[in-house]
Amino acid sequence: MNDPRPPKTARPNTPAPEDLTTWDRDHHLHPWAAVDHWRETEYERIEQAEGIHVWNAEGRRLIDGPGGMWCVQIGYGNREIAEAIAEQAVRMPYASPWSGTNAPAAELAHRIAEMAPGDLNTVHFTTGGSTAVDTALRTAQFLNNQLGRPEKKIILAREKGYHGSTYLAASVTGKERFRTRFDRDARVHFLPDVNPYRRPEGMSVEDWCDAKVADLENAIAEIGPERIGAFIAEPILCSGGVIVPPEGYHRRTLEICRRHDILYISDEVVTGFGRLGHWFASEEVFGIKPDIITCAKGLTSGYQPLGACILSDEIMDRLAAAGDSSVFYNGYTYSGHPVACAAALKNIEIMERDRILEHVREVSPHFHARLAELADHPIVGDVRGMGLLGCVEARLGAGTLEEDSRFGEELDAVCEEMGLILRPIFNMAVFSPPLIISKAQIDEMFDILARGLDRVAA
Amino acid sequence: MNDPRPPKTARPNTPAPEDLTTWDRDHHLHPWAAVDHWRETEYERIEQAEGIHVWNAEGRRLIDGPGGMWCVQIGYGNREIAEAIAEQAVRMPYASPWSGTNAPAAELAHRIAEMAPGDLNTVHFTTGGSTAVDTALRTAQFLNNQLGRPEKKIILAREKGYHGSTYLAASVTGKERFRTRFDRDARVHFLPDVNPYRRPEGMSVEDWCDAKVADLENAIAEIGPERIGAFIAEPILCSGGVIVPPEGYHRRTLEICRRHDILYISDEVVTGFGRLGHWFASEEVFGIKPDIITCAKGLTSGYQPLGACILSDEIMDRLAAAGDSSVFYNGYTYSGHPVACAAALKNIEIMERDRILEHVREVSPHFHARLAELADHPIVGDVRGMGLLGCVEARLGAGTLEEDSRFGEELDAVCEEMGLILRPIFNMAVFSPPLIISKAQIDEMFDILARGLDRVAA
Ligand SMILES: Cc1ncc(COP(=O)(O)O)c(C=O)c1O
Ligand SMILES: Cc1ncc(COP(=O)(O)O)c(C=O)c1O
Repeated sequence: MNDPRPPKTARPNTPAPEDLTTWDRDHHLHPWAAVDHWRETEYERIEQAEGIHVWNAEGRRLIDGPGGMWCVQIGYGNREIAEAIAEQAVRMPYASPWSGTNAPAAELAHRIAEMAPGDLNTVHFTTGGSTAVDTALRTAQFLNNQLGRPEKKIILAREKGYHGSTYLAASVTGKERFRTRFDRDARVHFLPDVNPYRRPEGMSVEDWCDAKVADLENAIAEIGPERIGAFIAEPILCSGGVIVPPEGYHRRTLEICRRHDILYISDEVVTGFGRLGHWFASEEVFGIKPDIITCAKGLTSGYQPLGACILSDEIMDRLAAAGDSSVFYNGYTYSGHPVACAAALKNIEIMERDRILEHVREVSPHFHARLAELADHPIVGDVRGMGLLGCVEARLGAGTLEEDSRFGEELDAVCEEMGLILRPIFNMAVFSPPLIISKAQIDEMFDILARGLDRVAA
Repeated sequence: MNDPRPPKTARPNTPAPEDLTTWDRDHHLHPWAAVDHWRETEYERIEQAEGIHVWNAEGRRLIDGPGGMWCVQIGYGNREIAEAIAEQAVRMPYASPWSGTNAPAAELAHRIAEMAPGDLNTVHFTTGGSTAVDTALRTAQFLNNQLGRPEKKIILAREKGYHGSTYLAASVTGKERFRTRFDRDARVHFLPDVNPYRRPEGMSVEDWCDAKVADLENAIAEIGPERIGAFIAEPILCSGGVIVPPEGYHRRTLEICRRHDILYISDEVVTGFGRLGHWFASEEVFGIKPDIITCAKGLTSGYQPLGACILSDEIMDRLAAAGDSSVFYNGYTYSGHPVACAAALKNIEIMERDRILEHVREVSPHFHARLAELADHPIVGDVRGMGLLGCVEARLGAGTLEEDSRFGEELDAVCEEMGLILRPIFNMAVFSPPLIISKAQIDEMFDILARGLDRVAA
């Protein structure tokens, strides 16, 4: 590449590159490693990063299509946030959330309560998205036990939903195509795929929406509302392939949940903090006020591990109303970590000052115009997305896992050669670049994608 | 207090103290808050910190007895670690562990594998202790499914053990005295209290050890070894009140587990990284090589959220031997976070260079001599500990939760007035100061404790 590296000095005491490669291969068990050949996989090592770009160990510059992992909203190399982190680390790096509090956590709780819709005013901090989801689901259990309805515990979740990796978060995750051997909690019921692209030949999107709403109603009728504690849903099913449910689906499913006193948990781990041009998407994009929102990722732009579970006043009041002194026996050593919270506060400040939400709303139409152009490509079956979330899906094919996966892997490989990282998911490739991406950079990204599709087709 | 604050400038854009107090009370749901009066509790706000001291919002300096929450090993205000954090945050703040890796994670995995006993050479990074435990327990499930023994799933855990707050980690936590209403996984069996202080009048500690080992053997005989997947145990039950099992207990229980192919998970979230004067306590202090070790807290001295689940080669080989391409479908967005891993590497470097493990071994005898003096106090029932872990327990009393709790709360309150924070746990107070504590500071701490006991007695 003809692009210079960002001007940084070498990391002090840097080990030799070969050692790092060996160590990573021999000692680092990555998420989703295939256990039968995990010591054979060499992971691409990212060494430096700036703006929307990362540099790998060979010094190649790449556009970071996935934005880290749907998270690096303000882009890489931001010195302001690094300084806020360092300042807090020196001033006061840790305080136990059990016995005390700290200024960044208190301020951040207040900021999040301001941003969150409706009466979602109570923030319980966690260490990421999975622990936020775990907390949300445990809260549904707690509430129903407190209200004397211990049978109201089944969680409704959706196929292709992804909610994380603790036992409970993994239990509501509907990505069934992976061969894995972890156990799941049995008290989960999955609703079928909501992807409009998968609707039967000739069915309108409106009819598809009716059918998807009916899936929820039927499940409730079958299981019995008295046995269902919560419905958990990403506003857009991101890891499942940026699946945008049909118009009206969110509002109608929320109303059904309300009717049956089923908690509606909106998992905004990806959609929160600007990805769709708003702090939260539930209300401003989809018109719903959930009972619980979970967030993480964009909250710190990925610079620090942090998550939050945001609870409605109604839930808090109902928990309290039972009148005994039950303890909310949930929380982490690193709940409300002052350094992570200071990073989140600075991240929010930067996003406000630099008008990043406005920027996302401004460049999104261009992003989607370029995305739409790809729909005509002969090997493309569907393109979709919203805000700065996009997905290209191959034409539906034979459908074994290996065959399907080839499209994503090949497209990823050829695009990487041309300087763009994608996230392949079976027969799809998704992208969610840093929110600071310019129109020209969007063009560069889609130019590579278009050439990549040609090369895969050839 | 006559001690000046550390020389730091005011935090930029600091909100008014009253606002912070209001925000924390109204919007921040702390771990273990009592839900019926959570909006009434005012948490002490820690504003600054240096060495073994913290300063609260009123500017009072306090010795941090609990060391944050058993974690601030190298002490507060360390500029080196803050700089390492900032440097990595600017260079490369985030890389997805799914598709890539980063130098600090690779190096840290290698360092941990070097430090960990026996063949524990594989590191899966998490965001803290709970997620490390969750991963360890899920790995036991995965392994037994993979080996075709799906019934071998019950986890043996112990009363008064604490293992964290995800659904699964909370399920193996045996602190039954809290009134709470969260659900638990049913596939857990608790072994009774191992605390020698609770042994029957007249029984020797050796006989107590035999009885505790028999508890394990009996449980296995009753349940059937073919139904038991793992045994999870803290080397010292810390949150349960720094309970040190009797000599020989660790070795004998490990042997029993091996005999029945029950995975031995040593939860070193507190005991790891120097608390007992060694990187890990399992082998060097207690002479055992577990199958899995979980760690967090001291790994970064609390400066950054990070945890790790360390797996033996034997487990990895058995996972692989099943021969299909199962995926280790576990992992977090913030697994191997480069900034958190850079903090851990710097933390380890500082501990090595400043010979902190040696320091702990050197000052511990003095710490325990001072602790032992408190045993003669008329209101004290037991004192115990190891390394820089200590506990003072009141004489066994009437025993309602409220009555028992008064001792801990009162002792904490009077000591705080004299400049020392403790961690009250019912009728106990525990302390685990930063590992850099000097002999003179240990004296200061115990002088306050002794006066505190007098005042509580009076
Ligand atoms: C919607 C959603 N929820 C939860 C999670 C889990 O978050 P984490 O990986 O931080 O635990 C993810 C991660 O990708 C996610 O996309
Ligand atoms: C022994 C032990 N295991 C696990 C945990 C949970 O760790 P975390 O709070 O970081 O999730 C703790 C926390 O105190 C602990 O003491």
